[in-house]
Amino acid sequence: MLFDFSISARNPDRDDAIWQRINLKTKPPGALGQLESLAAQLASLWHTDTPQVSAPHLFVYAGDHGVAAEGVSIAPSEVTAQMVANFAAGGAAINVFSRQTGWTLQVVDAGILVKPAANADVINARLGDITQPIHKAPALTEAQLAQAFTYAREHMASAHAAGANLVAFGEMGIGNTTPAAAIMSALLNLPATQTVGKGTGVSDDIILRKQAIVTQALELHAEYLSQPLEVLRRLGGFEIAQICAAILAAAEKGMAVVIDGFICSAAALIATKLYPASRDYMIFAHCSGEQGHQQMLKELDATPLLQLGMRLGEGTGAALSLPLIEAACNFYNQMASFADAAVTDVSGHAD
Amino acid sequence: MLFDFSISARNPDRDDAIWQRINLKTKPPGALGQLESLAAQLASLWHTDTPQVSAPHLFVYAGDHGVAAEGVSIAPSEVTAQMVANFAAGGAAINVFSRQTGWTLQVVDAGILVKPAANADVINARLGDITQPIHKAPALTEAQLAQAFTYAREHMASAHAAGANLVAFGEMGIGNTTPAAAIMSALLNLPATQTVGKGTGVSDDIILRKQAIVTQALELHAEYLSQPLEVLRRLGGFEIAQICAAILAAAEKGMAVVIDGFICSAAALIATKLYPASRDYMIFAHCSGEQGHQQMLKELDATPLLQLGMRLGEGTGAALSLPLIEAACNFYNQMASFADAAVTDVSGHAD
Repeated sequence: MLFDFSISARNPDRDDAIWQRINLKTKPPGALGQLESLAAQLASLWHTDTPQVSAPHLFVYAGDHGVAAEGVSIAPSEVTAQMVANFAAGGAAINVFSRQTGWTLQVVDAGILVKPAANADVINARLGDITQPIHKAPALTEAQLAQAFTYAREHMASAHAAGANLVAFGEMGIGNTTPAAAIMSALLNLPATQTVGKGTGVSDDIILRKQAIVTQALELHAEYLSQPLEVLRRLGGFEIAQICAAILAAAEKGMAVVIDGFICSAAALIATKLYPASRDYMIFAHCSGEQGHQQMLKELDATPLLQLGMRLGEGTGAALSLPLIEAACNFYNQMASFADAAVTDVSGHAD
Repeated sequence: MLFDFSISARNPDRDDAIWQRINLKTKPPGALGQLESLAAQLASLWHTDTPQVSAPHLFVYAGDHGVAAEGVSIAPSEVTAQMVANFAAGGAAINVFSRQTGWTLQVVDAGILVKPAANADVINARLGDITQPIHKAPALTEAQLAQAFTYAREHMASAHAAGANLVAFGEMGIGNTTPAAAIMSALLNLPATQTVGKGTGVSDDIILRKQAIVTQALELHAEYLSQPLEVLRRLGGFEIAQICAAILAAAEKGMAVVIDGFICSAAALIATKLYPASRDYMIFAHCSGEQGHQQMLKELDATPLLQLGMRLGEGTGAALSLPLIEAACNFYNQMASFADAAVTDVSGHAD
């Protein structure tokens, strides 16, 4: 079935062996901090004692939002397509960071107001030109939601076939912090004042407008807010729906999933409500400056790898996290043990 | 003169042009967070509009400490030499991370109890076998301090001659969080209870012993604590003295300097007290879990690039920061401007 996934929780059987290996490395126990838990996660998820990132793919999903017409952003919806063209031409931050760190970057048109040029290197996964404004109607139709899952499954199948064991998600969509805040409000039962932030840099009056729209949307769709798929359809967006579906499709295939900032975390939150086991596959890249993101990460029990004060989206945090993910694999594979290096182990481990 | 450096403060003349260039990139102003200020710092320091890391060198200075005999660490001083051998053999965390991210790693014997094997790839800059315990005597003699500066100048001259415009420092020395805490207490006028932490993982009774030693050392050397060079000589260590001197020598040559964790920050703190302009050359890599490091960073007005909960030293945080430093250069050099990409600039900049 389209919305059904077979996602196994991470198998803890090898955890003792994995942690013994980590603790016998030539360092005090725990001294590599988050890299240690990340290495343990990947060695376990990938069912290997030599975890290594393979063919990492980063998908940037772009979508336009009906709520943008309400003035919830500093930029008009046309900028979504302009930035997609910028991605296709290689000039955006996500291009620079993906090139540097070694991601295969895939730009996906999930449904934007102005179609990309026919010759642009953009995957066509259009669900429409723009969503319905969430405070007046469900953002997506049922058919659009179904198509989102079909597309996302195809994208993940393609990455998996290319050898990827790690995928990352980014997004572009003028106005999309508003639906992300609405999703957070719906799933965590929080008022708009606690979930609406300033996005990429809006003024106080825009924040008030965003809060009003989120509050209206929560009232309009109130009877559906306990159903995560309906929250996704009614309060989400074309790119958010495909990211949520892609997270589940990637987890089903055993790929680890890097979650970027606030928008992607909202998609991840829905994914965990649908399939709690999907959480085991997630790596959180960056804690954005967006209000509410920290609380959402807390709800997801997530400690991101980076906190650089970025608030750009596009998957920039995810892209920059790759060297740290590789560092986790590398210390696990390459560091000498106390016995290898004839270093006195004073931490009380047997070797 | 040996202790005299010619260090120019960063010239702010080009700051407006640099920030205009950053703000015309296809992103909202400030959206790349810390990477923006880092790019601006490097473009200014290196006097170029195409900042690019060149031949980055990472020096790990190792030294042994008389205070280690007082039981301030979980490990005996012999482990310093064992880890230096591990560095020379390529099996430690710093080897793994340096190889991955592209540093030329240089291991320096600044004076450790057990001499490295004659054929080991370790720079000989020995000031002795071990320092005097800081609570009983000055750690270094005046001759040793002078020799530390001579050696460090040579190391930086060598890196500079190899084309380096970026150097980083790490350290290895059983017991060296105690002198670092003493330096912090001396320069920031803080009691030992606020500067002594658990190092790489010691117990509560060891913490009390460390605090007692720091308190005794502060009393013994009380009349010299307003003189930064005397603080370095009396409360420091062989590796700490060479790192402090190397920071100043690197800044004198216009190289940017990456500061790792608590121990290196203590050396950096002395450097800024000697030459406030040296602060302009510093990039802070990692906020360690060590108590007091956050306060020291605050004193240095520093926001580190990483906070991964590591507490290993060796320069591991510095090594892992290189991809972020390169990302700062790359977005500055490679990202399209609004005009380049025909993206609507709604942030109010002229182009």
